[in-house]
Amino acid sequence: MTRTIVESKSKTAVIGFDEPFCVIGERINPTGRKKLAAELEVGDFSTVERDALEQVACGAMVLDVNSGAVFKNKMAEDPRYADNNFVEPPLMRDLIALVQKTVDVPLCIDSSVPAALEAGLEACEGRPLLNSVTGEEERLEKILPLVKKYNVPVVAISNDDEGISEDPEVRFAVAKKIVERAADFGIPAHDIVVDPLVMPVGAMGTAGRQVFALVKQLREELEVNTTCGASNISFGLPHRHGINSAFLSMAIGAGMTSAIMNPVRSVEMEAVNAANYLMNRDPGGASWIGFSRVLDKVGEGVPFPEAAQAASAGGTRRDGRRRRRA
Amino acid sequence: MTRTIVESKSKTAVIGFDEPFCVIGERINPTGRKKLAAELEVGDFSTVERDALEQVACGAMVLDVNSGAVFKNKMAEDPRYADNNFVEPPLMRDLIALVQKTVDVPLCIDSSVPAALEAGLEACEGRPLLNSVTGEEERLEKILPLVKKYNVPVVAISNDDEGISEDPEVRFAVAKKIVERAADFGIPAHDIVVDPLVMPVGAMGTAGRQVFALVKQLREELEVNTTCGASNISFGLPHRHGINSAFLSMAIGAGMTSAIMNPVRSVEMEAVNAANYLMNRDPGGASWIGFSRVLDKVGEGVPFPEAAQAASAGGTRRDGRRRRRA
Repeated sequence: MTRTIVESKSKTAVIGFDEPFCVIGERINPTGRKKLAAELEVGDFSTVERDALEQVACGAMVLDVNSGAVFKNKMAEDPRYADNNFVEPPLMRDLIALVQKTVDVPLCIDSSVPAALEAGLEACEGRPLLNSVTGEEERLEKILPLVKKYNVPVVAISNDDEGISEDPEVRFAVAKKIVERAADFGIPAHDIVVDPLVMPVGAMGTAGRQVFALVKQLREELEVNTTCGASNISFGLPHRHGINSAFLSMAIGAGMTSAIMNPVRSVEMEAVNAANYLMNRDPGGASWIGFSRVLDKVGEGVPFPEAAQAASAGGTRRDGRRRRRA
Repeated sequence: MTRTIVESKSKTAVIGFDEPFCVIGERINPTGRKKLAAELEVGDFSTVERDALEQVACGAMVLDVNSGAVFKNKMAEDPRYADNNFVEPPLMRDLIALVQKTVDVPLCIDSSVPAALEAGLEACEGRPLLNSVTGEEERLEKILPLVKKYNVPVVAISNDDEGISEDPEVRFAVAKKIVERAADFGIPAHDIVVDPLVMPVGAMGTAGRQVFALVKQLREELEVNTTCGASNISFGLPHRHGINSAFLSMAIGAGMTSAIMNPVRSVEMEAVNAANYLMNRDPGGASWIGFSRVLDKVGEGVPFPEAAQAASAGGTRRDGRRRRRA
């Protein structure tokens, strides 16, 4: 049974075939969040701090930290800021330092800039997940040595120099190539977490079925864990939470073992918790019952992150057991 | 690709491997609904009429009609009313007549009394679904001849003279026996809709996984459609809608083709509609978009059945296309 181990200074999270679904919080990401990018530009990390605390309280087991910011004002003053190779490495270091100071959960270092990934690896305590390598030759040659050097697991995205294929067989073949190339570096399959790529179902009706079939094939043939950017599935559609929730349940049923997602949404987290229970990953239902108490508060009008924070501060752990007294 | 055809006077519903999930409305059932039983006892069919209209508006494609009433007052006056063989056949006839007058959708005739099933078959226009036969010898001998005589499909429940087994292999073997015995009567497998029996996950942690695995096996090895009483899965648990929704999505993902369920619950129907879309059974997403307009109204505080009835009366079909003008 494949297990991918990620660690913070003192906490371990396991992504595994027989583990509860691993929720990787996606919020710490300035790409497409202009307000956050503007805050980071002036050295304001208050949103990052809040996002770290809220996501962990809501049930994130790992936090993704993405340094893909565009610093508009600095760029106008200093042309070096137009280059992400210049902007991201120091920003990644600062983000990792802040998040590690705020919460004690394993991190997922997320950048398209290899130097930012390495900066993150240097700054990170424990054993982070590296996000990501692809099947592109240049990426394979740059990222796999880092994975080996730092002995960390890595997210492998199923696109290559030809781009993203709409053909799931091609996406499987790209994943297989990455796993084989990693093996050449001495990186075991259990340290590769494949993202089979989720297309929007509004653009491609087979998008859901493709992912469910790919997850099954990746598990059975390559014996790798899987992840995805879950909310892509509902891009452009009304009532996205409904599509996301059904997708997450079905993906978990098909054997997907983690997702990079927004854990501060109660509807999606309800689907994940229920699906864990239905897959017998919550024996006795203690997690479900603990989560349902948070839902009770949400039903009374308390915002989900607040209700979740109150529950996690209230002496009851998310698995429903009481904390031991000191 | 297995297809089970059910018909009302003028409408057809198909339960099939490649069809949208068939929602069989469970509301018309006096078992466990004391108020409804009391109404039926005095000849008041107003709740049945409302339940028929609401369930169809909310998306039921087939309506289950169960005659399992206990008439307490009549029983006190006349001991014959203690016998369901006396109570149910005329009640089933009346229920079928009322429902057929109210809505034009295929029916599912539901009773443990063979004479009530036959009364329903006589009263029914079109091609109803018979609910049910089990693997019990006496039931097989009584029900299969009716199935053959009236040329109708039948729900086959996977218990036998030994009761309900907790072992999914035994439940599969019972289903296989029913399919084989039906074949002896000349009844094809595509007219058997197997209920693999859903246990409460709160009592048995493997309940969900058992059903998902059984559905797959029943599809692949016996090539039969499947159904279940979906809400059993969440019996005894808090926030049942969350468990039910995840279960329905996952069951659809595993290949289940119908469920006997309450369609007047927007959360469960949202899961069914989303799962249909994700299984590519809603090409272009027209049904999802139509349903999301109903959810908009629910978000504004309109009760789901009212919102659904308004949408179905408002010139927009559930698939989101405008009706043609006369």
